[in-house]
Amino acid sequence: MMSKIVDVITEYYLIPLEEELGDAKHGIHTHFELPIVTIKLEDGSFGVGYTYTGGVGGRSICTMIEHDLKPFLIGKDASCIEKLWEEMIWKIHYVGRGGIASFAISAIDIALWDIRARKANEPLYKLLGGFKNSTKCYAGAIDLNFSKEKLLNNIQRYLDSGFKAVKIKLGQETLEEDMDRVAAVRELIGPDTVFMVDANMKWSIENAIKAAKQLKKYNVLWLEEPTIPDDYDGYRRISSEGGLAIAAGENFHTVYEFKNMIERGNIDFVQPDASNIGGITGWLKIANLAYVHNLQVCTHGMQELHVSLMSAMQHQSYLEVHSFPIDKYTKRPLVIENGRAIAPETPGTGVEFDWDLIKQYKANF
Amino acid sequence: MMSKIVDVITEYYLIPLEEELGDAKHGIHTHFELPIVTIKLEDGSFGVGYTYTGGVGGRSICTMIEHDLKPFLIGKDASCIEKLWEEMIWKIHYVGRGGIASFAISAIDIALWDIRARKANEPLYKLLGGFKNSTKCYAGAIDLNFSKEKLLNNIQRYLDSGFKAVKIKLGQETLEEDMDRVAAVRELIGPDTVFMVDANMKWSIENAIKAAKQLKKYNVLWLEEPTIPDDYDGYRRISSEGGLAIAAGENFHTVYEFKNMIERGNIDFVQPDASNIGGITGWLKIANLAYVHNLQVCTHGMQELHVSLMSAMQHQSYLEVHSFPIDKYTKRPLVIENGRAIAPETPGTGVEFDWDLIKQYKANF
Repeated sequence: MMSKIVDVITEYYLIPLEEELGDAKHGIHTHFELPIVTIKLEDGSFGVGYTYTGGVGGRSICTMIEHDLKPFLIGKDASCIEKLWEEMIWKIHYVGRGGIASFAISAIDIALWDIRARKANEPLYKLLGGFKNSTKCYAGAIDLNFSKEKLLNNIQRYLDSGFKAVKIKLGQETLEEDMDRVAAVRELIGPDTVFMVDANMKWSIENAIKAAKQLKKYNVLWLEEPTIPDDYDGYRRISSEGGLAIAAGENFHTVYEFKNMIERGNIDFVQPDASNIGGITGWLKIANLAYVHNLQVCTHGMQELHVSLMSAMQHQSYLEVHSFPIDKYTKRPLVIENGRAIAPETPGTGVEFDWDLIKQYKANF
Repeated sequence: MMSKIVDVITEYYLIPLEEELGDAKHGIHTHFELPIVTIKLEDGSFGVGYTYTGGVGGRSICTMIEHDLKPFLIGKDASCIEKLWEEMIWKIHYVGRGGIASFAISAIDIALWDIRARKANEPLYKLLGGFKNSTKCYAGAIDLNFSKEKLLNNIQRYLDSGFKAVKIKLGQETLEEDMDRVAAVRELIGPDTVFMVDANMKWSIENAIKAAKQLKKYNVLWLEEPTIPDDYDGYRRISSEGGLAIAAGENFHTVYEFKNMIERGNIDFVQPDASNIGGITGWLKIANLAYVHNLQVCTHGMQELHVSLMSAMQHQSYLEVHSFPIDKYTKRPLVIENGRAIAPETPGTGVEFDWDLIKQYKANF
């Protein structure tokens, strides 16, 4: 029996952050955007998917879903997710390889997986294999604009909440300032807390190699996005000459970008984000790519969904608990126990928005 | 004195094609979309830019300009185009590296160049160096869905219009069908007409190599887009094992995609399109990249604008005269003399839309 799609409803939410958050290349964030897609089937069942942005592009994503992808989806069989994923990519390929299209397809794909898991009456982590029901995780701060005092208070807050791993932003005016902050954080967290750093693409190759060498003595697990995501040879040089493990992924929005970076760039930690790599279908392709390359998989953002994906994986590394708190606007904010994030047991993706809470942020697109 | 931007007006046009046009991966086209941007300065002067699509994504492009890029541009100095270009790319980088953002930035950038050339009181081809005032060109058909008879009639129409070079689409169900059409076209056009073929990304590497070997005897100048644009190693194999010159570019929407393909993929003809590579600023970066790699530069689409860019270049190859006839809706449809396209002499880009003619196609975005 065909699970016929009869409606695709797109909503746009613009949600303010509690405080201004800054990083090296995106500047200051004041809001995040949350496009939400509800897909309805002929039998009355439905699924909900979503994506998010750092404050720009969200309306363009919603417009693409409404005008280009919804007309394609109406009447199609919701069960054949992987087929629909491929067809959506090719429908929008010329204008939308990567970029906005990857976010639009992600929101739709997650809604389709919500339907698949609800129909199976399974929580997502089990539907995907259920290697564990929890995952290691870290608190990912967006704190480049914080004073050193505020930076340390924020990290202390994470430790107090039970986190056993933390990440800070690098990319101050001088490398000396960065190293001063790194030294202070390592002193605060002690030798046993896992510590990552993230330069958000700010540096030249030469700067990145210099930074990696200086970071070594602080026992940093990974240096994330030292330079622009397109420079495969640059990443390889930073990895081999800098001597630190390198992480990247949030800016790869096609499977081929990951393939090229893994094979040419020598990264160690692969960080796909289901909100921008084509949803759960895209995320699984990258997780598999990491698996066959003997690499560990991580995530970027949307912890409330990624907790289920990561928990399911044999080769899980660290789930990012991101500073855009989408999970605060759901009925089950992320659950952390003994420093591990726990996957929801409800059938579906386990991400149910609290519509009463978010309705005040709804806007036109 | 600062050339302050006071308004950015975005319009969306959906223009029907005279007949259905098909290729191997995009299927059948019935319309093209034409987002047009008018930028107004404090002194009352203005410039007009635009982009186009094959029928999807245009409203998403307009929405990005309206909600994400216009607020950034208001109050900025229109003279500093290259600075604005870089800043727009980074403003929208996370959600829009390539894809829709490249089209949106293209329309804005072309409007800014229109202002720059009008202020200089120069036609665009001279402002860019004016190596010649004309360029070689070819008729680029979108004819995969045409019967063999219609295909040949269409090519004859090009020859009758004065074209000395023609391109057809490949990617039929079997390679035998493709070769039958290629043989028939070569017979029709005779040995002296330049002949290109375009597979629109349809083939596997193995299929493409087989096709290239069979195409050799028909004296084909280039095989265009034999496979997906992300497979640099695949392109290198097709080029070296197939033994034909390879062309690509319409699906590279960042400067880095061109860089990676040129250095790794061994392509011979570089085909940037100012409508999707970030306007004239982006096109010039790719033309320069081709120059320093000792490669010839070509174009894809929007002949009414590209004629000026190509005419200016020392290393010009062939301008594509594309089957989406944007130039028919301007006050100066493309001028061809002795098989060469002639650059307009009017100050500015030389692309002035016939507003009376297009107003019937205006729609909401």
